[in-house]
Amino acid sequence: MTTPSRRDLANAIRFLAIDAVQAANSGHPGMPMGMADIAEVLWNDFLKVNPADPGWVDRDRFVLSNGHGSMLQYALLHLTGFDVSIDDIRQFRQLGSKTPGHPENHVTPGVETTTGPLGQGLANAVGMALAEKLLAQRYNRDGHTIVDHRTWVFLGDGCLMEGISHEAASLAGTWGLGKLVAFWDDNHISIDGNTDGWFTDDTPRRFEAYGWNVIRNVDGHDPVEIRTAIETALKSTDRPTLICCRTTIGFGSPNKAGKESSHGAPLGKDEVAATRAALGWPYAPFEIPQAIYDGWRARDRAAAQADWAARFAAYKAAFPMLAAEFERRMSGALPENFAALAEAFIARVQQEGPAIASRKASQNTLEAFAPQLPELVGGSADLAHSNLTLWKGSKSVTSRDPDANYVYYGVREFGMSAISNGLALHGGFIPFDATFLVFSDYARNAVRMSALMGLRVVHVYTHDSIGLGEDGPTHQPVEHLASLRYIPNNDVWRPCDAVESAVAWRCALERRDGPSCLVFSRQTLPHQPRDAAQVAAIARGGYVLKDSVGAPEVILIATGSEVALAMQAAATLGETVRVVSMPSVEVFERQDAAYRESVLPKACRKRVAVEAGVTGFWRQYVGLDGAVLGIDTFGASAPAEALFPHFGLTVERLIEVIRAL
Amino acid sequence: MTTPSRRDLANAIRFLAIDAVQAANSGHPGMPMGMADIAEVLWNDFLKVNPADPGWVDRDRFVLSNGHGSMLQYALLHLTGFDVSIDDIRQFRQLGSKTPGHPENHVTPGVETTTGPLGQGLANAVGMALAEKLLAQRYNRDGHTIVDHRTWVFLGDGCLMEGISHEAASLAGTWGLGKLVAFWDDNHISIDGNTDGWFTDDTPRRFEAYGWNVIRNVDGHDPVEIRTAIETALKSTDRPTLICCRTTIGFGSPNKAGKESSHGAPLGKDEVAATRAALGWPYAPFEIPQAIYDGWRARDRAAAQADWAARFAAYKAAFPMLAAEFERRMSGALPENFAALAEAFIARVQQEGPAIASRKASQNTLEAFAPQLPELVGGSADLAHSNLTLWKGSKSVTSRDPDANYVYYGVREFGMSAISNGLALHGGFIPFDATFLVFSDYARNAVRMSALMGLRVVHVYTHDSIGLGEDGPTHQPVEHLASLRYIPNNDVWRPCDAVESAVAWRCALERRDGPSCLVFSRQTLPHQPRDAAQVAAIARGGYVLKDSVGAPEVILIATGSEVALAMQAAATLGETVRVVSMPSVEVFERQDAAYRESVLPKACRKRVAVEAGVTGFWRQYVGLDGAVLGIDTFGASAPAEALFPHFGLTVERLIEVIRAL
Repeated sequence: MTTPSRRDLANAIRFLAIDAVQAANSGHPGMPMGMADIAEVLWNDFLKVNPADPGWVDRDRFVLSNGHGSMLQYALLHLTGFDVSIDDIRQFRQLGSKTPGHPENHVTPGVETTTGPLGQGLANAVGMALAEKLLAQRYNRDGHTIVDHRTWVFLGDGCLMEGISHEAASLAGTWGLGKLVAFWDDNHISIDGNTDGWFTDDTPRRFEAYGWNVIRNVDGHDPVEIRTAIETALKSTDRPTLICCRTTIGFGSPNKAGKESSHGAPLGKDEVAATRAALGWPYAPFEIPQAIYDGWRARDRAAAQADWAARFAAYKAAFPMLAAEFERRMSGALPENFAALAEAFIARVQQEGPAIASRKASQNTLEAFAPQLPELVGGSADLAHSNLTLWKGSKSVTSRDPDANYVYYGVREFGMSAISNGLALHGGFIPFDATFLVFSDYARNAVRMSALMGLRVVHVYTHDSIGLGEDGPTHQPVEHLASLRYIPNNDVWRPCDAVESAVAWRCALERRDGPSCLVFSRQTLPHQPRDAAQVAAIARGGYVLKDSVGAPEVILIATGSEVALAMQAAATLGETVRVVSMPSVEVFERQDAAYRESVLPKACRKRVAVEAGVTGFWRQYVGLDGAVLGIDTFGASAPAEALFPHFGLTVERLIEVIRAL
Repeated sequence: MTTPSRRDLANAIRFLAIDAVQAANSGHPGMPMGMADIAEVLWNDFLKVNPADPGWVDRDRFVLSNGHGSMLQYALLHLTGFDVSIDDIRQFRQLGSKTPGHPENHVTPGVETTTGPLGQGLANAVGMALAEKLLAQRYNRDGHTIVDHRTWVFLGDGCLMEGISHEAASLAGTWGLGKLVAFWDDNHISIDGNTDGWFTDDTPRRFEAYGWNVIRNVDGHDPVEIRTAIETALKSTDRPTLICCRTTIGFGSPNKAGKESSHGAPLGKDEVAATRAALGWPYAPFEIPQAIYDGWRARDRAAAQADWAARFAAYKAAFPMLAAEFERRMSGALPENFAALAEAFIARVQQEGPAIASRKASQNTLEAFAPQLPELVGGSADLAHSNLTLWKGSKSVTSRDPDANYVYYGVREFGMSAISNGLALHGGFIPFDATFLVFSDYARNAVRMSALMGLRVVHVYTHDSIGLGEDGPTHQPVEHLASLRYIPNNDVWRPCDAVESAVAWRCALERRDGPSCLVFSRQTLPHQPRDAAQVAAIARGGYVLKDSVGAPEVILIATGSEVALAMQAAATLGETVRVVSMPSVEVFERQDAAYRESVLPKACRKRVAVEAGVTGFWRQYVGLDGAVLGIDTFGASAPAEALFPHFGLTVERLIEVIRAL
C-alpha cells in the first residue's frame, strides 16, 4: 500500500468493526461503517487526546452516545495507539475482554463513559462540557489557560428520539456550552427500519430552538465537508454545535448499506466478502497494513500534553494554591481537613440535638461542608426550596463567577442525573442532584448508570414517604426505597434525624466507587440520643440505637421517620427490646459478619421491621417468623397527621404487631 | 349581581381555588388563577362534555397535564354541574375526599386521568387523541359519524421541560393528530422562580419542528383572543395545535401575581383579602352567587349527547355488527368466545410442548389471540423484531386502514407507556407496549401510573436477564423484576415456557383493574410437562410444578429460565424435593391462605429460590433459614452460555446451595 487515503484510514475502522462483529457473531456493524469517515477526520485532525495517558486532565472528551457502535470506538482506540490491542479487538464481546458489547468506562482505556442506554451519552457530554466551563472560569488566569478542551459526542436517531435529548440539549443551549460539538448520524434508519414512520422531527430546527449552532447538510462521507463543518463549529464560542451529517448506515456493503439489516447483526460471510471487494480492502480479518497504522499515528498526539504540562508548571509557580486545589480536585481526594471537619460537625449536631426535618438537616450539613468543597456542584430539578439544596454559598453556573456551583436544572430529572454522571466522569467535581423521592423514577436509569460506572454522585431525594401529606399518591413514594436499594453498587441512606443525615452526607462524599441516594423527610423528625460509640457506628449503616438489657427478646429494625416509632414502642414494651436503626442497608451489608451478628443476632427470631414503604424488602431481616409494618398500597392525599394512622403506621399498631409475634 | 362578565365567571374559578387552598393550608393557587380565563372560554364555548354522564363515549377529553393546578379542574367540574359539590371543594386535600391534591381519575367524576408527574398528561392526551383517530377510522361510515371528539390539554413550563414532552409531541406530529389541542400556560415562572435561568427554549419553534400547528402570542387573559385561537385550532385537521398563551401566574393577586410565591402555597389571609378587593369579588369563601352558576350552566350540555345517541341509534340500525363491537369494546368486555379460545390455545401449547424463547411464545400467543381482539393496539420502542410484537395482522396506525393496530413508537419508552395509559383511559382499547426489560427504567413512572390508575395496559419486556448475552450490563436487567413487583397493583409475569407465556397473556388481557408486565426471555426455554390441573393452576401465579413424594423436605421456588435449573436439580436430588414455579408473585399473593399453604407449607423451612436477578426479593419466601441463588451485581458482556456459569447460575451450584442448607 502506498500512502493511504482518508477513505483507506476510515476503512480500517470499518473492517475492524465488520470482522469483530463477524467473529463474535454478535454486534452492530452498521453504525461504525456509517460514521467511520466522520470519526477519521475528527480523531486525526482535531481530537486532543494522548493515547499514552488516557487520564490527562486537559484532554478532549469523546462520547459515543450511540454506544451500540462500540466497535467504532475500539477501532479508533486501537488505531491511534491506546492500550487496546488487536487481540483485544478479536475478543470483542467475550467474557472479561477489554471490548465489551457496549463501551464501558471502567473497562477500556480511553472510553470516557459507559453508553448504550440511548440519549444518556449526550447528557453525559453536556455534563462534561459544563465541567470544563466551570473549571476554566475558576482556574484559568490571564496568560495561564490550563483548562481548555472540548467535548465531542456522536449520536444517532435513537438518541434524538429519547426524551433525555430534549432535556440535555435544552440545558446545553441555556448554558451556552460553546465547546460542545455533537455529530448527528443522520442515516434515516433505526432498528425497525426507515424512520419515516416514526421520526419526522425537523431536528435542525429543534436544536435551533434550543439556541444551538446548527450546521446542516454535511455529507458524512466527504472528509472535506466534515473538516469544514468542524472548523465552523470551532468558531462558535457561546453556543453548542450540532453537525448534521447525512450518512449511509452500513456504508460499503453492496446489499445491506442503507438498510436496517446492517444495524444489529453480523453482515454474514458472503456480504463481508462483497464489502471487501466493494471497498477495495484485500486484507485478512484483523490485518491492518503498516501504512494504515502509520497514517493513523502520523500525528504526535503526545505533544499537546507536553505543551500543557509546561504551561501547568508555569501556572503552578504563579498560582501555587490554585494549582494545588486543582490537582487535589482532579485526583478525587477530599481536602485534608475534611474528615476532622465532618467529625466535629456531626458531634456538634449530636450534642445540640435539633428536632428538624431531615431535608433541613441536609441543608445544614451542606452549609457546614460545602464551603470547604469547591468541587461540590449541584442543584435541584426545580425544587430548590423543597429539596433545600441551596446554601449560602450557592452561585448559579450560568454566571461567570469562579465560585459558580449551583445548577438550576429545571424540571428535568433524567437529564439532571445523567449530567451529574458527566460531571463526575469529567473529574474535578462531586456532583449532587435533587428531586422528590417519587420522581427518582424519572431519573432511574441514570441512577443505575451512576452505580454501573462507579461514580461518586450524590442523589438527594426529599419527601420520602406518605409523610409529605396532601400532594397525594402521585407524589408519595412507596416502592422507591426498596427499588433503589436493589440497584447494585448504589448506597441508599434514609436517616432518622439530623445526626444520621450529616453522617449520610459524609459517607456519600467520602465514597469514591459509587453513588449514594440520600433520602430525606419533609416533616420534622425528633432527635435520638446516642453515645460516642453509637455516633461512630452510624457510618456502618446499621447499629443498635437502644439496646435491651441482656440478649434481646425482640429486635425492632427501622429507618428514617419510623425510628421514632420503634423507640416509642420499645419504651412501652420494656427492656427486652432492642432497636436497630438501619439508615443504609447496603453499607450494613458490607460490614464483617461478626459486626452484623452483633447487631442482629441470629438467635433472636422475634424481629419486626418498620418503614413507610413496601414490606417485602424487609422480610430478608425478619424471616418467616417475624413481621413487617409498612405500606404495600399507594398513598393518599391528606395531611400527614391523618395519613400515618390511616395506613396503620402508629406506635399502637406497632406494639400490636410485636405482641402478636 | 347582574349578568356576569366572562371575567366574573373566571373569577369564580380563581376564588374557589384560592379559598380551597387557603382552607387546606396547602395547594397551588397560582396556576388556576393564571389559566382561569382560558378554561372559562374552553369549557363554556367549546368543550363537549355532559356533566350528567361523565362516561359518555363521544365526549371531549380534557387533560390537566399541570396537575398541581387541580383546583382549576375541580372548580370547573363543580361550576358546570358535575358531581363535585361545594362541600367536596371544601374538603380539598382531605382524607377520602373527591378533591385530592392532584387530580385522580378513579376518584373524581369528570377527571380523565391522574396527573401531577409532569409531562405525562400531555402523553396521555396524545394516547387519547390516537384512540379517537383509530376508533373513527374503524367505525365511522359515510353519513354516520359516531366517533368525533377532541382532546384538550393544559400544560405548563414544567411539562415542556420534561423529556417526555419531546417524545409525545414528536409522535403527535408524526401521527397528524388534528383533534389534539394543547394550551401552553406561558407564565415564565416555575417553582425556582423566573424561568430565564433554566428554560430558554423557543417553544413555538420546537413544536413547529414536530409538525404542529402553532398559534403564538395569545393573551391568556383576553377571552376574545382565546376564542379566536381556539377557532383557528379547530381548522387544523391534520396537525395538532399548540396555543401559546401568555399568562400571569396568580393573576389578580396584588402582591404575588407573576411571582413563584403564588405557585405552591396558600396566598395567606391578607393577600386573599387583597385579591378579593382587586378582582371585585365580595363573596365569602365558597360562596358562588346564583348568577355565576347560571352563567356557567346556561349552555345545554346534555344536548350534544342526546344528538349523538340518536345518531348512534341510526348507526346501530345500519351497522349492527360494527355497533355491537363498538359497544363491547367501549364497555371493556372481551369477546364472548375469548375465554374458550384462550383455553384451547393454552391446552394445545401444553400438548405440543415447543422449546422456544418465551418472547417467541409471546408472539405465537399474539398470533392466536389478536385476530379476535380488534381492541388490542400496541407496539414497541423500535425493537419490534427483538420484542417480537409484530404479528400477521399488524397494520401501522399511521395508515388510514380500519384495522390499524400497530404503533411504531420509535425509541421513546416513557412516551410510549404514557401513551398506552392514554389509550386505556380513553376506552375501547387494550394497549400493549414493549422494550427490553432493562429499559423499563426509562418508562418507570408511566408503569407506576398504569398501576395507580388501575389501567389494563400490557407492558411487554423481553431480554429478561443476563441470558441476553453480549450486549452487556447496560442491557442486562438485574434489579428490574423485583423493582417492578414492588409497584403496588402491578402484576409481573415471568413465564418459564410457552405454556406459562400464553397464560400470562390471557391473565393480562382478562385483568380489568390494573397493568401487567410480561417478562420474556431472549433465549430458548425448554417445555415443562404438566397435567391439566397444573395447567389450570398457572393462573394462580404460583403452583407445584413437580411434587415430592410425601411432604416436601426441600422446596425450590423458581421463575422463568431458572425453572429448568430447579427441575434438573430436583431430578438429581430425588423425590423429597418439590419444585414451585412462581411466574407471578403478585397473583400468587392474591390467592387464599389455604392455597398458598398448599404450595408453600409453613413447616418446610428448607427452601431455595432461584432467579437470575437480585436475591433480596426472594428472602420473603425462604426466610432466614433458606437460600437464594441469583445475581446481586451487574452483568457482563459475553455469550449467554459463558455468563450463566460465570455468575454461578448452574444446576451444579444450585445443588450445592441446596445441600448446604
